[in-house]
Amino acid sequence: MAGNSFGQVFRITTFGESHGEAIGVIIDGCPPNIEIDLEYIQSELDKRKPGQSKITTQRKESDTVKILSGVFEGKTTGTPLAMLIPNEDQRSKDYSHIQDKYRPSHADYTYQTKYGIRDYRGGGRSSARETATRVAAGAIAKAYLSKHGIEIFAHVSSVGTIEAPNLGDLSIKELVTIREQNIVRCADPATANQMITFIDAVRKDGDTVGGIISTVVKGVPAGLGEPVFDRLHADLGKAMLSINAVHGFEYGSGFSGASMRGSEHNDIFVNPDRNIKAIKTLTNFSGGIQGGISNGMDINFRVAFKPVATIMKAQNTVDTSGEETQIVGKGRHDPCVVPRAVAIVEAMAALVIVDHFLRNLSVSGS
Amino acid sequence: MAGNSFGQVFRITTFGESHGEAIGVIIDGCPPNIEIDLEYIQSELDKRKPGQSKITTQRKESDTVKILSGVFEGKTTGTPLAMLIPNEDQRSKDYSHIQDKYRPSHADYTYQTKYGIRDYRGGGRSSARETATRVAAGAIAKAYLSKHGIEIFAHVSSVGTIEAPNLGDLSIKELVTIREQNIVRCADPATANQMITFIDAVRKDGDTVGGIISTVVKGVPAGLGEPVFDRLHADLGKAMLSINAVHGFEYGSGFSGASMRGSEHNDIFVNPDRNIKAIKTLTNFSGGIQGGISNGMDINFRVAFKPVATIMKAQNTVDTSGEETQIVGKGRHDPCVVPRAVAIVEAMAALVIVDHFLRNLSVSGS
Amino acid sequence: MAGNSFGQVFRITTFGESHGEAIGVIIDGCPPNIEIDLEYIQSELDKRKPGQSKITTQRKESDTVKILSGVFEGKTTGTPLAMLIPNEDQRSKDYSHIQDKYRPSHADYTYQTKYGIRDYRGGGRSSARETATRVAAGAIAKAYLSKHGIEIFAHVSSVGTIEAPNLGDLSIKELVTIREQNIVRCADPATANQMITFIDAVRKDGDTVGGIISTVVKGVPAGLGEPVFDRLHADLGKAMLSINAVHGFEYGSGFSGASMRGSEHNDIFVNPDRNIKAIKTLTNFSGGIQGGISNGMDINFRVAFKPVATIMKAQNTVDTSGEETQIVGKGRHDPCVVPRAVAIVEAMAALVIVDHFLRNLSVSGS
Amino acid sequence: MAGNSFGQVFRITTFGESHGEAIGVIIDGCPPNIEIDLEYIQSELDKRKPGQSKITTQRKESDTVKILSGVFEGKTTGTPLAMLIPNEDQRSKDYSHIQDKYRPSHADYTYQTKYGIRDYRGGGRSSARETATRVAAGAIAKAYLSKHGIEIFAHVSSVGTIEAPNLGDLSIKELVTIREQNIVRCADPATANQMITFIDAVRKDGDTVGGIISTVVKGVPAGLGEPVFDRLHADLGKAMLSINAVHGFEYGSGFSGASMRGSEHNDIFVNPDRNIKAIKTLTNFSGGIQGGISNGMDINFRVAFKPVATIMKAQNTVDTSGEETQIVGKGRHDPCVVPRAVAIVEAMAALVIVDHFLRNLSVSGS
Repeated sequence: MAGNSFGQVFRITTFGESHGEAIGVIIDGCPPNIEIDLEYIQSELDKRKPGQSKITTQRKESDTVKILSGVFEGKTTGTPLAMLIPNEDQRSKDYSHIQDKYRPSHADYTYQTKYGIRDYRGGGRSSARETATRVAAGAIAKAYLSKHGIEIFAHVSSVGTIEAPNLGDLSIKELVTIREQNIVRCADPATANQMITFIDAVRKDGDTVGGIISTVVKGVPAGLGEPVFDRLHADLGKAMLSINAVHGFEYGSGFSGASMRGSEHNDIFVNPDRNIKAIKTLTNFSGGIQGGISNGMDINFRVAFKPVATIMKAQNTVDTSGEETQIVGKGRHDPCVVPRAVAIVEAMAALVIVDHFLRNLSVSGS
Repeated sequence: MAGNSFGQVFRITTFGESHGEAIGVIIDGCPPNIEIDLEYIQSELDKRKPGQSKITTQRKESDTVKILSGVFEGKTTGTPLAMLIPNEDQRSKDYSHIQDKYRPSHADYTYQTKYGIRDYRGGGRSSARETATRVAAGAIAKAYLSKHGIEIFAHVSSVGTIEAPNLGDLSIKELVTIREQNIVRCADPATANQMITFIDAVRKDGDTVGGIISTVVKGVPAGLGEPVFDRLHADLGKAMLSINAVHGFEYGSGFSGASMRGSEHNDIFVNPDRNIKAIKTLTNFSGGIQGGISNGMDINFRVAFKPVATIMKAQNTVDTSGEETQIVGKGRHDPCVVPRAVAIVEAMAALVIVDHFLRNLSVSGS
Repeated sequence: MAGNSFGQVFRITTFGESHGEAIGVIIDGCPPNIEIDLEYIQSELDKRKPGQSKITTQRKESDTVKILSGVFEGKTTGTPLAMLIPNEDQRSKDYSHIQDKYRPSHADYTYQTKYGIRDYRGGGRSSARETATRVAAGAIAKAYLSKHGIEIFAHVSSVGTIEAPNLGDLSIKELVTIREQNIVRCADPATANQMITFIDAVRKDGDTVGGIISTVVKGVPAGLGEPVFDRLHADLGKAMLSINAVHGFEYGSGFSGASMRGSEHNDIFVNPDRNIKAIKTLTNFSGGIQGGISNGMDINFRVAFKPVATIMKAQNTVDTSGEETQIVGKGRHDPCVVPRAVAIVEAMAALVIVDHFLRNLSVSGS
Repeated sequence: MAGNSFGQVFRITTFGESHGEAIGVIIDGCPPNIEIDLEYIQSELDKRKPGQSKITTQRKESDTVKILSGVFEGKTTGTPLAMLIPNEDQRSKDYSHIQDKYRPSHADYTYQTKYGIRDYRGGGRSSARETATRVAAGAIAKAYLSKHGIEIFAHVSSVGTIEAPNLGDLSIKELVTIREQNIVRCADPATANQMITFIDAVRKDGDTVGGIISTVVKGVPAGLGEPVFDRLHADLGKAMLSINAVHGFEYGSGFSGASMRGSEHNDIFVNPDRNIKAIKTLTNFSGGIQGGISNGMDINFRVAFKPVATIMKAQNTVDTSGEETQIVGKGRHDPCVVPRAVAIVEAMAALVIVDHFLRNLSVSGS
């Protein structure tokens, strides 16, 4: 009801505020006998952590994760897997100037209205810091999926008006290598350089900018997703829209499909291998999902992020007593959120797919 | 788990296939003492029903709804409210030619793979016929919301490449009147005419085309929505993506926000009435939702529909034994789904908002 | 939230009042490819239906069930399976005398207080008539379990102070045959005769009496149930306590275990067949469940029913305006509910076990 | 699905094994603006903690709770409230002798069968240690209920065959005072002495014994509970049956109601104060709940606990390779679990009632 859980079989519940003692996550329904590689979990967290480059916030958090339960002798036991990430660099004083002011396009006003109380030190629960716990849980989901041949890749395909070209036929392993060679996490090196230069200029201007993350999932077997409300793309959409700053989601043809004709949009079935278990489509405007259920083709989708709300410029606003006032951003914030959000998008995609994978066992195995 | 339910407090569960005996819906958690106006429910269904104009399918269904439970002496009792809509014009013979063939960009193949069985008479459960039950439930949600001052308006803002201009400052009542004066359900009469001409041409060509529906919700109080996974826009997104043929969702600035700067995107708080309960924002790129929680401004979002998959042209495909074959659409299908989908979008929006409205009572009333 | 659903994977949602048009149930998550035998479902309903003997209510309902969806060519399709049972013998006039009076130990007062409105024609939603829909759904659950070697047997083990001796080593098939040869549904014929004579005397006295139903489930594989809150016996307990008139539940040693010592209560593990997959226990005070999870032994439990509240004697009470008054039972009611409740207990047990069976597939198959 | 959560609006999720690093709980849906008194939470934990007297296990755990999130400046914020209790006295070596043997009437065998892996150091997740986290969460629920005039009292009413007489008309405050003056937590001092002597003798004999806990809840307003599956007593029953070692639950007349007649069992409505909001019943065989909904009278129920399975005597059993063997209990275990379980029963009752209290706000406030 209060909505801090996600998933049905592989269900995560997150807790913790940006300036409290710690944040954490419980995975309930994690399958038993998965080998847990703490280094891998940590490496995923490192892709999201603050302070990793000149185009991210300079807040310093090592985001060191600790497993409290659910793992015995290096393997999951099927019981709740709890992970804790202490908050280290809290610097609450940075936020004292905004205790009584509603920051524009932040959640200060809506939280105050909903709860009648809020932790004014930073965003509290509305801070993107919460997403670190999703990345930790997502790393375990990705490890499980990988064993079943399912791989997820996301990258920054657009920053401001700079757009990357479509990716070619590279493997996910190759794509990851290219992406991780630049700090903006775009899989096209030339575009990446333009993006970095642009974000740096925006940063120096005390401003922020939005962007788009594109994702592909390979190896998903046909049959995942439920037909009516819990369509696979509907759950992916909800997952992505639950990430801070996301304002749009599209899969397959997406918004461009709205101006297409059926005769060009339909994905023609073919069977090149004469294998009834490996039917394919010639095109993939369906984005790998038909009637809400995966069809065995690559799943692809795009997620739009608005610019970060905290800027280093003076802005008008209203204080908690209703008086109009001014506010100037302080603290340490990201000029553009998408380079760090790549890890979050992959984590949420993994959480959706592992959940539907496990849900489908009670249909396919019945 | 099987995903035929939606909502938490105001929870609907739908059933029925396109060519079975009946479709229906149970609302569990409908508040007591709501007056039920069957004529209003029927009028909502009439906006979605087939055969209503030359630009919709000619399948004839009166979509007459019957209430089986949960209403006593004209008022809801708080117990499950069940509604039934018999299928009248089933004409199963129209579908015999596709019994053994997977229709391109339909759910035939994914259902067969998932369940190992499917009702091959039409789309069965994947048919948009299921959405009639959502419209019936949504009508009750809308009636409840209306008593609390919340009004929802959707219209067709785009068909193919034809786009309607932004709507002015008309009231929702005025907008509905304009929209209902044309069969494409666009609130701009000049654009509506272009759209109708275009859809009719597409239809004569045996083809189909996609479109976009834009929605505004007025009167939502600040405080609805949950902060992390069940953000108000995430639940709206999931609701919209669960409608047949939807490939994209955006709210507020949406995908265009990805190329904006924070300094132009931030919505400045103002308090023109010096009323602490009526704080407003100068712009509304947030789409009425900040941190996942409504802020009292208008909520707005856009939903992209792909073109209908059934076309009256020959297409290559594969049959259930894996052989490549050809298929030609028969039966009665829509050249463009958006005019009928306006009622579905409004219904799903109402279901999300009434659910969060009731959920919030356990926070605000605690 | 409003609690008209039960189960997680095999999830039922029921609707309908005792004096409305119809009652019904949706099963969401019914596995595909189960053969549906309407006659079997009907035969289960016949065990619960009113008017079946001199010791049940004389209300006449054929309880004829109709399947509206989810079945195609005699098999389930994996989509929602909806069943409808029309109300035939409503005789609303029988209830006019209680429109304004709260019947003692009925739900009239609590419903009125909770909802501010109630269907005063009979119990409305609080009537045991609702349980017919559970029996219909349970019949499908039982058919599925039977294919997996799981059989459920319940019988009336106690009425008033008359108790049946422990059953011997008969098969479930034999037990059912014996039970169905008497109208009280006790598997010990001599005790059954005493019970029938006693109930008939109570009925002639215008009074009612309670009883106990004992249940055994054979063939449940080890591993079903979840370790903490959703223990198999906790879900069985909730299921039984959700049946009208039930005031107690115990499994294995039950309340008598509270006065035993560990040294006599512990069930010693043995392996007579030297088969690691067929470990047994010498005794079964655990009732087939250890740590909330089935251990492969027979599951057994007992359910206590209070006497029916409607009696044919004058009683003092209070009316809806708070005035003290008198009431005399009219209408057609059961002198003892347990003979008809046997079918309900079996149905609810089947629903719990099929749900945990399917839930466990996502653990065991992962 | 994996069942480590309980409740719908006030929803707890617990984690942690008996011999891991820590155990903990997240409350999601805790109302905002509740004052948090850590000392009170700790005092509740002290009633459950091991080592508190000669008739409990000598395992030493301070059970010091730490709040990680959801509280700001001493008040709840409406966001997830996470609490952590480190494990201090783990002594894993005590358990090495049972690594490969299935302890009789423990969950070793069922866990191994279900998951294919288990933490063999003590009961892992099946240990009653998990219930400490429920007591911590329950303390917050109790504090909230107390502000709304709802008080819960449980005590040990039976150990072996020693039964306490019915309690008189004392207030809950007086009852607590009496109960806390003896180490067995029985509210009748004379009976308490007998119980203590008996348990001590059982302990010296290396054996264990069961018992019964009786509970009364005062001040619950009429209207809590849902009519069909989520009846208030069904949820109380599930809550109690989810506590380790519980084998039976009854409310109101319970099992004794099965041998009563309707004319003696019916609770006659009266209105002594001529106050339509304060209708009462002369007797309370309904246990304060009618049709699954509270009626404003005291709620009462009883919970039966089997004897603890770990005894200090040699027992036959089977090892993990299927060979028959012997086992002798070591370690530190309770001769009788009920004195410590009083706090758990109260906590679970509080969790059920606060959940239904908050659920009902979306009905009563709609």
